[in-house]
Amino acid sequence: MKIFLDCIPCFLMQALDACRIATVDPVVHERIIRRVLHGLGDIPFDDSPPQMGAIIHRIVREETGHPDPYHPVKARFNRLAQGLLPILRNKIESCDDPFAAAVRVAVSGNIIDFAQGTGLDESEVETAIDDSLSQVFDIDHLARLEAALDGASSILYLGDNAGEIVLDRLLLQQLPKDIVTFVVRGAPVINDATIEDAEAAGLTELVEVIDNGSDIPGTVLEECSPAFVKRFQEADIVISKGQGNYETLSDAGREVFHLLKVKCPVIARDIGCPVGSRVVLQKKPNSFRTTERGPGR
Amino acid sequence: MKIFLDCIPCFLMQALDACRIATVDPVVHERIIRRVLHGLGDIPFDDSPPQMGAIIHRIVREETGHPDPYHPVKARFNRLAQGLLPILRNKIESCDDPFAAAVRVAVSGNIIDFAQGTGLDESEVETAIDDSLSQVFDIDHLARLEAALDGASSILYLGDNAGEIVLDRLLLQQLPKDIVTFVVRGAPVINDATIEDAEAAGLTELVEVIDNGSDIPGTVLEECSPAFVKRFQEADIVISKGQGNYETLSDAGREVFHLLKVKCPVIARDIGCPVGSRVVLQKKPNSFRTTERGPGR
Repeated sequence: MKIFLDCIPCFLMQALDACRIATVDPVVHERIIRRVLHGLGDIPFDDSPPQMGAIIHRIVREETGHPDPYHPVKARFNRLAQGLLPILRNKIESCDDPFAAAVRVAVSGNIIDFAQGTGLDESEVETAIDDSLSQVFDIDHLARLEAALDGASSILYLGDNAGEIVLDRLLLQQLPKDIVTFVVRGAPVINDATIEDAEAAGLTELVEVIDNGSDIPGTVLEECSPAFVKRFQEADIVISKGQGNYETLSDAGREVFHLLKVKCPVIARDIGCPVGSRVVLQKKPNSFRTTERGPGR
Repeated sequence: MKIFLDCIPCFLMQALDACRIATVDPVVHERIIRRVLHGLGDIPFDDSPPQMGAIIHRIVREETGHPDPYHPVKARFNRLAQGLLPILRNKIESCDDPFAAAVRVAVSGNIIDFAQGTGLDESEVETAIDDSLSQVFDIDHLARLEAALDGASSILYLGDNAGEIVLDRLLLQQLPKDIVTFVVRGAPVINDATIEDAEAAGLTELVEVIDNGSDIPGTVLEECSPAFVKRFQEADIVISKGQGNYETLSDAGREVFHLLKVKCPVIARDIGCPVGSRVVLQKKPNSFRTTERGPGR
């Protein structure tokens, strides 16, 4: 998915949010915003939005000298999700279809995303996840995912955000764990999960965890490590969490099952569902393509 | 009032809106947005927001070759307001305090502002203006304005938007018309009123109308004609409509009565009232000043 003109104001809001999290110094804020403005003025709009996101957060880290501004926020949401885990585990186990219930929780966990601001409330997260068990998907390719998993010999699970990955554990427990590899980002960016979060979430004890070698808040294969790319190409099944992975893998040249909560109008239009939708989407290579530059007005 | 970092995403939305109104060509849209991004990256943030607004709309006019993209929208809202006039005039005349009622309508008319997007609905305008007669002001210096008008020998009334200026007629009719001069912008910018709109609104038959010689969506004295500046400095009373005039005149070095509807969080914070407030504000020279760069988080 390419950068749409409607992404530009949103990038600026993301940059503002990030620089205010990283420092209270207004001189540094201004320097960051000026660099982001010129960066946006020059970037090829054929890049995907997370590539611009990566540039923004590199600027924030460089100008503030802060290697991981979202670290406290990530730790907080990891703890929040850990607290929800026992009750959710019980609820899932008592469902008629624990796999479907675990997918519901995993999709709802994708609400823990700070790419569009850190204004997320903890009680909002708790309510959303609790409600998720009784909700239907707006795009529901769950049966296709189940069928594909049947007989698969390798599953690559692309994680998204800290906190969210704690809830992914509940889905990992429904999968044949010995054939699952969980993937985190190669370096901190926004609240995206890294190896440190995977350890905090207990994922490293459960399944193989690798990083993708990149600090982009998505999965841009050209920027990932060769080791990751090989795993991506060879896996029987790829399950991808969240918008950043969707935006960067929508033309990945292979089938991907996307589990996400749609939080942005540009992505909503690309997928073809309203903002707020909860989606389990089987995306085949070139199954659809964006041809226009920007949402209709 | 200076440019705050929070104004930046909003500028980009304004630019997007304006370029889409001016042309459907996505290549031109991209060219405009890239120029606006670099322009924002370089502008001194000590300028006022309408100065950046002027730069944006000059870029839009240059790149599209369209001298007045908002012309149809302005005509539409002039007609809408004309349609409301007879009923509102009757209502005002039957009020105990017709002057106060006319000020209420004039403030509510300030809702017709496309600086933050053209998504304004006609029925929304009708309802807001109709409701205005029973509403109190969030900042209410009406009595001070009345006292100041008593014995004044010249009144300069700085208009804001097309459509809105039609409703300003009702307030002009409550003033001693022979000492009132109504001011419009010197050239088209957003939906701000020009001489053409003043003629369509019937203002030129009612009072003296002049333009300020500038295409900035506000009143930047250094950019206005010497003739206007002289009138501004010498008038007994200056009544100013809208946010753009407030942002550019908040350090004007003379007393100004601001009539506006607060539509943006940065201005709300500067004035000290919530977004949505309806304000009649007597602003004395340096009666308060903004010292911080950006709203608290």
